[in-house]
Amino acid sequence: MKIAVLGTGMVGQAQAGRLAELGHDVTVGTRDVAATMARTTPDGMGNAPYAAWAARHTDVTLATFAEAAASAELIVNATSGNVSIAVLEAAGRENLAGRILLDIANPLDSSKGFPPTLFVKDTDSLGEQIQAAFDELKVVKALNTLTAALMVNPKAIADGDHSVFVSGNDAEAKKTVIGLLESFGHTDVIDLGDITTARGSEMVLPIWLRLMGVLNTPMFNFKIVR
Amino acid sequence: MKIAVLGTGMVGQAQAGRLAELGHDVTVGTRDVAATMARTTPDGMGNAPYAAWAARHTDVTLATFAEAAASAELIVNATSGNVSIAVLEAAGRENLAGRILLDIANPLDSSKGFPPTLFVKDTDSLGEQIQAAFDELKVVKALNTLTAALMVNPKAIADGDHSVFVSGNDAEAKKTVIGLLESFGHTDVIDLGDITTARGSEMVLPIWLRLMGVLNTPMFNFKIVR
Repeated sequence: MKIAVLGTGMVGQAQAGRLAELGHDVTVGTRDVAATMARTTPDGMGNAPYAAWAARHTDVTLATFAEAAASAELIVNATSGNVSIAVLEAAGRENLAGRILLDIANPLDSSKGFPPTLFVKDTDSLGEQIQAAFDELKVVKALNTLTAALMVNPKAIADGDHSVFVSGNDAEAKKTVIGLLESFGHTDVIDLGDITTARGSEMVLPIWLRLMGVLNTPMFNFKIVR
Repeated sequence: MKIAVLGTGMVGQAQAGRLAELGHDVTVGTRDVAATMARTTPDGMGNAPYAAWAARHTDVTLATFAEAAASAELIVNATSGNVSIAVLEAAGRENLAGRILLDIANPLDSSKGFPPTLFVKDTDSLGEQIQAAFDELKVVKALNTLTAALMVNPKAIADGDHSVFVSGNDAEAKKTVIGLLESFGHTDVIDLGDITTARGSEMVLPIWLRLMGVLNTPMFNFKIVR
């Protein structure tokens, strides 16, 4: 599949690398290609600069948000939640029409320290805000409840015996995303319902952040035992 | 241990029955004993009236909130979140002094239909509001993330291989509550930290409610796989 990954951080790198490994035609989208490639210092989370990652992943192309989206069938939103809508605007509505958006972003507000709070919740969600802002997209919220390494390689813990969730209004788009998650190795993908159910998965973040603190690792996930 | 269970609904009945079965001296607290015993119709959730339950649990005493709290070492808050603070006021501050409060309540606002939203979240929590209102209590938030039957009998699914959480400011009180949860059969009790971490466990409710819908049963729980 032709896939655009918007965002060059830890989540974007994990998605792009794994999708390319699985044989997809992957373009990473960024605001300014030259600036992204010129950056030589780690990001705020301590991740290596994109150029260092790109040197090891020559099968992945870097382009502007608009160029990446233009040729893609499926777009991965791997941007920070607070810039997601601006990034999609920058990609251009004409380049989004009819695309599936796998939305991994969380509405984290880190402006008041750690742990971050959520800038939208409970009666609305980032997934819904994106769907409302871009009628031309088929938004599927997924993978926002676990760390990047586990999103794409669930078998790294407990042989993949844990759960992920999807929310979205378009049944066919959800089917495509579920297939993608299964190709990553996920074996328990739970369809929560329409995009309003993203309220549920996004509100998992506050306990996720505290669990990361007490477990002293991001390498954990929720399993829905039943 | 002498334990007061405040609340006569499904959660109160499950707690009181199991605690008595484990040999504790249990008193259930209600606003008006005569009115509670006179009720002959199921509650809003379809649960049998308290009197029918009490007839099968003659080892459990029913008393007013104040009487129940007065003689207890540990108090279980099994009331609806929207009345929890009023119930504790009714129990009387002099009857709460020095007690551990196992707070199971969730801040659900059902006034706008299903699924309910949360009347406090993200920057505050019901657990914190109760702790702030009643300095004399040692509040430990726990068991608010799973259905009543599983709170007290975790082995009813997957031989108990799933997780529960505790939040609270008092280390000794948390130790007592963790011991109680283990006596119920819980094998993975995760201490999230101080009472502010109740924000995390309370915000799990929105996904819990949606999972109950899609799984078509409340008999499931989260396991933190790591």
